[in-house]
Amino acid sequence: MNIELRKDAEQIIKESVESVLPDEAVVRALEEFKPGRGKLVLVAAGKAAWKMASVAVNMLGTVDCGIVITKYGHVKGNIPGVECVEAGHPVPDENSFRATERAMEIVKNLEADDTVLFLLSGGGSALFEAPLISGEDLQDITKQMLSSGADIVEINTVRKRLSKVKGGRFAKLCAPARVYSIVLSDILGDPLDMIASGPAYPDASTCERAIEIVEKYGLKISEQVRKCLMIETPKSLDNICTRITGSVTELCRAAKKCCEKLGYETTFLTDQMACEARDAGSFLGSIAKSHAYDGKKRAFIAGGETVVTLKGSGKGGRNQEIALSAALQIDGIRNAAVFSIGSDGTDGPTDAAGGYADGDTADAIRGCGLDPIRLLGDNDSYTALKSANGLIITGPTGTNVNDVAVILIGKNLPIDL
Amino acid sequence: MNIELRKDAEQIIKESVESVLPDEAVVRALEEFKPGRGKLVLVAAGKAAWKMASVAVNMLGTVDCGIVITKYGHVKGNIPGVECVEAGHPVPDENSFRATERAMEIVKNLEADDTVLFLLSGGGSALFEAPLISGEDLQDITKQMLSSGADIVEINTVRKRLSKVKGGRFAKLCAPARVYSIVLSDILGDPLDMIASGPAYPDASTCERAIEIVEKYGLKISEQVRKCLMIETPKSLDNICTRITGSVTELCRAAKKCCEKLGYETTFLTDQMACEARDAGSFLGSIAKSHAYDGKKRAFIAGGETVVTLKGSGKGGRNQEIALSAALQIDGIRNAAVFSIGSDGTDGPTDAAGGYADGDTADAIRGCGLDPIRLLGDNDSYTALKSANGLIITGPTGTNVNDVAVILIGKNLPIDL
Repeated sequence: MNIELRKDAEQIIKESVESVLPDEAVVRALEEFKPGRGKLVLVAAGKAAWKMASVAVNMLGTVDCGIVITKYGHVKGNIPGVECVEAGHPVPDENSFRATERAMEIVKNLEADDTVLFLLSGGGSALFEAPLISGEDLQDITKQMLSSGADIVEINTVRKRLSKVKGGRFAKLCAPARVYSIVLSDILGDPLDMIASGPAYPDASTCERAIEIVEKYGLKISEQVRKCLMIETPKSLDNICTRITGSVTELCRAAKKCCEKLGYETTFLTDQMACEARDAGSFLGSIAKSHAYDGKKRAFIAGGETVVTLKGSGKGGRNQEIALSAALQIDGIRNAAVFSIGSDGTDGPTDAAGGYADGDTADAIRGCGLDPIRLLGDNDSYTALKSANGLIITGPTGTNVNDVAVILIGKNLPIDL
Repeated sequence: MNIELRKDAEQIIKESVESVLPDEAVVRALEEFKPGRGKLVLVAAGKAAWKMASVAVNMLGTVDCGIVITKYGHVKGNIPGVECVEAGHPVPDENSFRATERAMEIVKNLEADDTVLFLLSGGGSALFEAPLISGEDLQDITKQMLSSGADIVEINTVRKRLSKVKGGRFAKLCAPARVYSIVLSDILGDPLDMIASGPAYPDASTCERAIEIVEKYGLKISEQVRKCLMIETPKSLDNICTRITGSVTELCRAAKKCCEKLGYETTFLTDQMACEARDAGSFLGSIAKSHAYDGKKRAFIAGGETVVTLKGSGKGGRNQEIALSAALQIDGIRNAAVFSIGSDGTDGPTDAAGGYADGDTADAIRGCGLDPIRLLGDNDSYTALKSANGLIITGPTGTNVNDVAVILIGKNLPIDL
């Protein structure tokens, strides 16, 4: 193993994951936050809502009032001045609806110099919801759409219109107060109107399009639903300011920053990698090979979330497959390494966060009497990397903003002939 | 279609393919060539041997003597001072052996200030061969190895030792004359001891290793073969100078140069891409997406040779699959394009050299009533791209140095909402 590269890898992993933890991410996002002179109201929804709210209140000192809506079991204590409600996820329940109505009440009569600090995280779509139609109607159309073959954009185009808060409507309710949103993102590419269906972001979709979708999939809808679909969502909002934080983009940025600090000339490739894991690993490995003799320390960063098409019965995860597949490409290139981790600290059904491979990894696996090619074919990246000390183990990190893979090219080493 | 990006793509394709045609490639490689004061001897072997020799003699004015060994039907005329021989490929025949013996004769008694210009191209392994053992013995062991599961490195390790010219032995024969080799490469990563089994390059493999391979696969060998395997190949050669030309590396370099000329800030990624085509396309598309809003013209270059795992029954090729797969990633991003071509001008069993996709391509395909996702699943990239004017058609180019894929990011365009 290339000890130097492995050591650098550990540091890059540590610093980049830390940068996207809700605490750090909220603190960073709040650095630019200046509330108005009026009241300060906090509304937090999502799986990380309690954590985000507690960091925010701690940092701001106090808020005038507020509400946290999170998943059952996720409230960890009292936050001064803030009601904390637990509700249904992934299927919204009466608690979600009641708590969301309560949030609407809190922001309804605000003035122009009041401020709503809106903290949104994964799961917000179910947790922050107040339907315009009956629960049965909502369930029925949701079920029809899920089985129709409609894609997520189409489903959201319809659903936004059936909600009192989605598609920018929550921000409209807050007006004339200013809404400062902090979004802890776990969706590739950060489409702000998609995260929790964008309660505080202008909606790009149209009524016309919603009706088209109903016709395209032959959805059966009630008169009440049809009426809702005809009501347009806000197309522009002049009282919002949105700060995405803790996203895969920030994860990549932090990895890049750390690589540069360690002396690597660093190229950011993408934060939207979405292909098959083993092919991503192969591609990254081929980049490493082509730069191994450049004579300088180089790094490349690729974030996103790859997929694994299971063909075998082994143990592993997408990040470990990236590393194992890359190991085969950089086999023998002793100054190159590729590693990949899930920012949540878990990769597939294993105790590893991801995998590390360098030019010695394939040989180390073979040295244990194992065949790295066969193990990759059997989706058994865990076994392969374990034998070569290539597992990266962090434990659960408390956030989930996809994965990041890094190529490191160290100083040139002589090739053994 | 983004007309500007498409126009740039055409120019990049034209200029980069031209740069790797044997003519251009040989001319460029000869720019640094300074023959000694003695005799100048030309030896050319491979499918492009006649072309390379004819360009060289034309440029040098004259040679003292020489021989071209190429495939049947590939001698296109007389070259002054040079014998032109056609022989068997891919299976060597008596003509290959006789012509190679003739080449050995020509270089045998040269002096220190004489020079051998050695021109090597694809197919040289069969065309440039003089076995140390009988034809039957050679055929027998080749057959055994091919069915044994031995890989190409293992096969070559054995075969080099059964030849009078491979594994650096030809250069040894030329000594004390200097050998200036120009290698027109079609092997990823340009391993010089692998191209035609390296007649003029030191051999890294050992006798020990050759015997190990015989034992590993239980090959049955004659006493004569065993004796040959024990004779070591040259481990260093002080009379050689090697210039690789027309390789995928030069293809990438030329593409990069052209992109820069057109004002794109260009990043060379790899010349050794070898993963599944659709995943390469997805990866390239995700790079394009992540840089589409950088606000500057950018290009990324990835060369190599991807693979296609056939799952459907459509028509297409690996380069067209890259483009179609990328089209789905950059769908709607109007200032991004991804294109990929085979440098030989053919891609799969089609009349196209490759494919072009930009942010409008997926929509154009859908506009023809076709489903780009389904067509990709059916390996029907030709049909998909044809409908969107995304086929790149060059006709056969006369060279084969793998493929190159390019990402172009143009000036930002407004996104249609």
